[in-house]
Amino acid sequence: MAFQQIGEQFCQHYYQTFDTNRAGLHPLYSQQSMLTFEGDQFQGADAIVQKIMALPFQKVQHQIVKCDCQPSVNDGIVIFITGNLLVDDNANPLKFAQVFQLVKGPTGNYYCHNDMFRLNIG
Amino acid sequence: MAFQQIGEQFCQHYYQTFDTNRAGLHPLYSQQSMLTFEGDQFQGADAIVQKIMALPFQKVQHQIVKCDCQPSVNDGIVIFITGNLLVDDNANPLKFAQVFQLVKGPTGNYYCHNDMFRLNIG
Repeated sequence: MAFQQIGEQFCQHYYQTFDTNRAGLHPLYSQQSMLTFEGDQFQGADAIVQKIMALPFQKVQHQIVKCDCQPSVNDGIVIFITGNLLVDDNANPLKFAQVFQLVKGPTGNYYCHNDMFRLNIG
Repeated sequence: MAFQQIGEQFCQHYYQTFDTNRAGLHPLYSQQSMLTFEGDQFQGADAIVQKIMALPFQKVQHQIVKCDCQPSVNDGIVIFITGNLLVDDNANPLKFAQVFQLVKGPTGNYYCHNDMFRLNIG
C-alpha cells in the first residue's frame, strides 16, 4: 500500500540524514511543524533543527525495528517507529520510539508536521 | 493548552473504558478509523472493537506514564502514550506505547481516527 511505502521511505531518508548531516533535516519540516523531544516542545523548522543539532553526541546511528504506518486525513500519513539508537562509542543501544505525521504542503510534497520522540521508558 | 487537556482527558476516558467495559470503546471510533495492533491492521469501529474484545485476558489495567500531545491539521490532535499494562494476576507490568490521532467528526465531536499499539520492543 502506498502509505506504508511512503512512510518507510521517509523514515529511511530521515534517519540517514539525521545520522550523517543533521542540518539537512531542515527542508523536511515547515514553520507549522512541532517537535516534542522528551516532553519539551519546539515549533517551526528553525527551532526544531536547532534542538536536534544541539543534542550532545558526535556520532549517532538509528536502527529501525518496527515501522507502522496509517493513512491519515487529507492524504496525511501517521508513522510510529520503534528502534535502537547507537550513540558515540557506547556498545549498548538505547531503545527509542518516535511518531511522525506527514502532511502534504502547498506544492504537494510531504513534510513532517508532527514529530514526537521518547527514549523508552515505562 | 487545549490540545494537551483534550488529549489527556481522552486517554483517561479511553483506558478507563478499556479496563472496565471494552465494548464501550465502539463510539470512540468511526468507520474510517484504523487500528494497528502489534503490526496487524483493522479498519472500522466494528473490526477494531472485535479485535480488542478478543484479546486473551480477563483483567487489564493501563497506567499512563507519559502522554505527549500535539495539535494536528484540521483541529486534530496527535497523542503519544507510554505506559504500563497490568494483565490478569501478573505482578510484572508490561510496557506499552500507543499513538492516537483524534479528528473532529461531522458533529464536531472528536473520534479516534488513528490507533497504533505496540508492546515495547527494540
